[in-house]
Amino acid sequence: MAEYRLCSFLVSLIITIISCTSHSLAAPTYRYPRFLGRFAGQTKSHPQIQPQYETQYFDQRLDHFSFADLPKFRQRYLINTTHWAGPQRLGPIFFYCGNEGDIVWFATNSGFIWEIAPQFGAMLVFPEHRYYGESVPFGSKEEAYKNATTLSYLTTEQALADFAVLLTELKQNFSCKECPVVLFGGSYGGMLAAWMRLKYPHIAIGALASSAPILQFEDIVPPETFYDIVSNDFRRESSSCFNYIKQSWNELKSKGHATDGLEQLTETFRICRQLKRTEDLSDWLESAYSYLAMVNYPYPADFMMPLPANPIREVCKRIDDCPAGTSVLERIYEGVNVYYNYTGEAKCFELDDDPHGLSGWNWQACTEMVMPMSSSEESSMFPTYDFNYSSFQEKCLKDYGVKPRPKWITTEFGGHDINVALKKFGSNIIFSNGLLDPWSGGSVLQNISESVVSLVTEEGAHHIDLRAAGPYDPDWLVEQRATEVKLIEGWIHDYYKQKNATYSM
Amino acid sequence: MAEYRLCSFLVSLIITIISCTSHSLAAPTYRYPRFLGRFAGQTKSHPQIQPQYETQYFDQRLDHFSFADLPKFRQRYLINTTHWAGPQRLGPIFFYCGNEGDIVWFATNSGFIWEIAPQFGAMLVFPEHRYYGESVPFGSKEEAYKNATTLSYLTTEQALADFAVLLTELKQNFSCKECPVVLFGGSYGGMLAAWMRLKYPHIAIGALASSAPILQFEDIVPPETFYDIVSNDFRRESSSCFNYIKQSWNELKSKGHATDGLEQLTETFRICRQLKRTEDLSDWLESAYSYLAMVNYPYPADFMMPLPANPIREVCKRIDDCPAGTSVLERIYEGVNVYYNYTGEAKCFELDDDPHGLSGWNWQACTEMVMPMSSSEESSMFPTYDFNYSSFQEKCLKDYGVKPRPKWITTEFGGHDINVALKKFGSNIIFSNGLLDPWSGGSVLQNISESVVSLVTEEGAHHIDLRAAGPYDPDWLVEQRATEVKLIEGWIHDYYKQKNATYSM
Repeated sequence: MAEYRLCSFLVSLIITIISCTSHSLAAPTYRYPRFLGRFAGQTKSHPQIQPQYETQYFDQRLDHFSFADLPKFRQRYLINTTHWAGPQRLGPIFFYCGNEGDIVWFATNSGFIWEIAPQFGAMLVFPEHRYYGESVPFGSKEEAYKNATTLSYLTTEQALADFAVLLTELKQNFSCKECPVVLFGGSYGGMLAAWMRLKYPHIAIGALASSAPILQFEDIVPPETFYDIVSNDFRRESSSCFNYIKQSWNELKSKGHATDGLEQLTETFRICRQLKRTEDLSDWLESAYSYLAMVNYPYPADFMMPLPANPIREVCKRIDDCPAGTSVLERIYEGVNVYYNYTGEAKCFELDDDPHGLSGWNWQACTEMVMPMSSSEESSMFPTYDFNYSSFQEKCLKDYGVKPRPKWITTEFGGHDINVALKKFGSNIIFSNGLLDPWSGGSVLQNISESVVSLVTEEGAHHIDLRAAGPYDPDWLVEQRATEVKLIEGWIHDYYKQKNATYSM
Repeated sequence: MAEYRLCSFLVSLIITIISCTSHSLAAPTYRYPRFLGRFAGQTKSHPQIQPQYETQYFDQRLDHFSFADLPKFRQRYLINTTHWAGPQRLGPIFFYCGNEGDIVWFATNSGFIWEIAPQFGAMLVFPEHRYYGESVPFGSKEEAYKNATTLSYLTTEQALADFAVLLTELKQNFSCKECPVVLFGGSYGGMLAAWMRLKYPHIAIGALASSAPILQFEDIVPPETFYDIVSNDFRRESSSCFNYIKQSWNELKSKGHATDGLEQLTETFRICRQLKRTEDLSDWLESAYSYLAMVNYPYPADFMMPLPANPIREVCKRIDDCPAGTSVLERIYEGVNVYYNYTGEAKCFELDDDPHGLSGWNWQACTEMVMPMSSSEESSMFPTYDFNYSSFQEKCLKDYGVKPRPKWITTEFGGHDINVALKKFGSNIIFSNGLLDPWSGGSVLQNISESVVSLVTEEGAHHIDLRAAGPYDPDWLVEQRATEVKLIEGWIHDYYKQKNATYSM
């Protein structure tokens, strides 16, 4: 590790002799929204739990809403019936709404659901989202992702219909048409859980939607929300850390434009391959900060990367604690090392976070999941950026040959004026959020009605409540989970009461 | 008219000399469910009202739920803003969910909505359902109805999404994003109104679903429901009438198999073209009885056919009151003349009610709207028929080249266990039904919650409440409409209260 620490005089010297002349650079390009799903599939050696399940497959229609003659696809789902109370006792079905990645990863990282299943006598089902993991149509991922035509059925409404059809089939196969279903989901999966409860109330009696930014669309929340929260997460640890990062972008720009600047940046940041554009490095750094804010957990975790407890605190410590005279960029390198190389095993870094890569999530971001994001000069530590719909559309046309439908999600699922719209409508949804999570700003942070409630924790990060319990869980997290269990118990009791079922937990 | 009355000695004689030998005939074939929409477009010379509106068009996606590259189509809608209170006062939008026919016909026959608009300061919008009237994709009805591929986007969910997109656009264009929308609909349109309120609560605050058989799917109600209600409508007028009709099918069968039987039936029933199969005549008669039950209104009406008040009473009177010795089939002819030829203008009849005709509604019945219907020996006056899914599927494959999805509607919209499923979920829906209407048996006839309510009238027929008020309206109908107005007022007041709007009605 030591050889990569750049708080050395030599490098400092090199940096100081580079001219600080300001160059005009291309404006920062739009980044597709960062969710954690892109790490799915990278299941590490230290999963939180080792869940026991059977893997099953179910044939799904490609377009549920037309009768076009299309090939079916096999949807994978994981199922565990060990603790299930069975059909006679109307044993509940806990159903995790699979999101943008390999379902095994989500199952592995949702210990909470596995842990509470026994006390509920619940069956567990983890269906995979279409076009992810093994659940791809047209025979292979290559075929499925070939072009806009093959990708065109990768939509949220189709995914929800997959869940609805699968659940209806499972209920029938288990002779359990009246068994209550509780939905779970985190991040995009949490959005799916909430929307599924709203669209299919006859199929599921309630939903725990953890860190679900269902309001991060159009103008419902200010576009600066996400990056402002990330920035605040750093500022609350240390204002100097915040300032170093804020300062770093200009330094990076200047350096990138200097003679041999890209070579020096490649060296400073230990990039494996010669840097071609400063923006690639900026993107890499921005990603680190954004993901750090999401997984700013109070205990060491290996969710997407092995990280220490309170990783932002650790990053800022590294940035702040360099010897006097250490340059801003050296400090930044020290900081992001916490994120990209906490184990110290990396010899150099691949900037593989390719914003132009054809990923399923990016397709979704380019079609329905249009989440405007800006970064303001005043409150953000990121480079200033104003979301511009035209250039976003241009990027999507270029990347995928598809035109986004920025107003579709709110037309289909609502979002504007949600307090009024759902006050009398809808029930049994928990929106849980930790305020450290940059996605919390686009989620529901107020109680909407008696049974559409918001659980907010000051110190929580991205769907921390769905993770397995552990010895380092702070009290507020233990309490939050207990509240969730109590609310879910209430839904199920209500349901049994209505059904006059004899089984009670 | 007199020359068509067949209570004559001559015909009686001819009939009596025909052998009554029973022949085995092919089992009755499945009939697609009979809604009134097939009469849309046949706007008669005496419409109930002469509505004033502007005709507009709106470009819609063919598949809202995928990004497949498909041509758009122009959706027609009728709009009237004469009485609208405007955006500042959050004037309501009354939105009729267009059903399976020409929208002008539905607008003309929904006088209630036009009559109550002024007191609500409401804008009126009547959108046409895709694939009907002028709102057909692919340039022409011929192209749109060419095959299963072109028809494949004729689905309920796509139609609801059309409405959602149109409403969102209208609200924006009228600077009235927060104006409350109330949905209306009768029959299939009533199903759409109810489902739209459930699926798009953020777009519309409530729905009046008149005669909406949302439970006429799978095994939710017994398959005999529809024909039993029709039969009861006849029996309550006269048990001998019921018996004559019940008896007539065998007579028809026998006659059809006799030498020159088809010629004689053609003559007896004044069929314009030589009858080829007895079943065509049976279908024609069954249609008459079914539609008569639907429009068994207490006053003369010209909804689908010009008819007297209480037309079933009139039919039974004609059947019963023939001179002694009149044969059963002569009596039947006398009876259906009330339906097919009340004005006495017809010289002969075209059996144009072709069950194999490629109509939009039949496509819908063959894909999503699978409504199992049987007719029992015990309680029905119709030929005995057991709904058989295999032969139904076979028929759809033959007629349209499409395989039905009989479980899809309940998966997408629910229906089973509706009292429990919607008890806490959903609000502001009126299910109004008249018990004479054969579709009432598949509708919601009990209050589900405080604001999902059922209005049932003993003497009402198919969505009579949506028709214009008239001097012959019975008290129960006047009261029913007043209750509906009061409930809708309540929804709007609630909404304004929530919005803290200053405008009050």
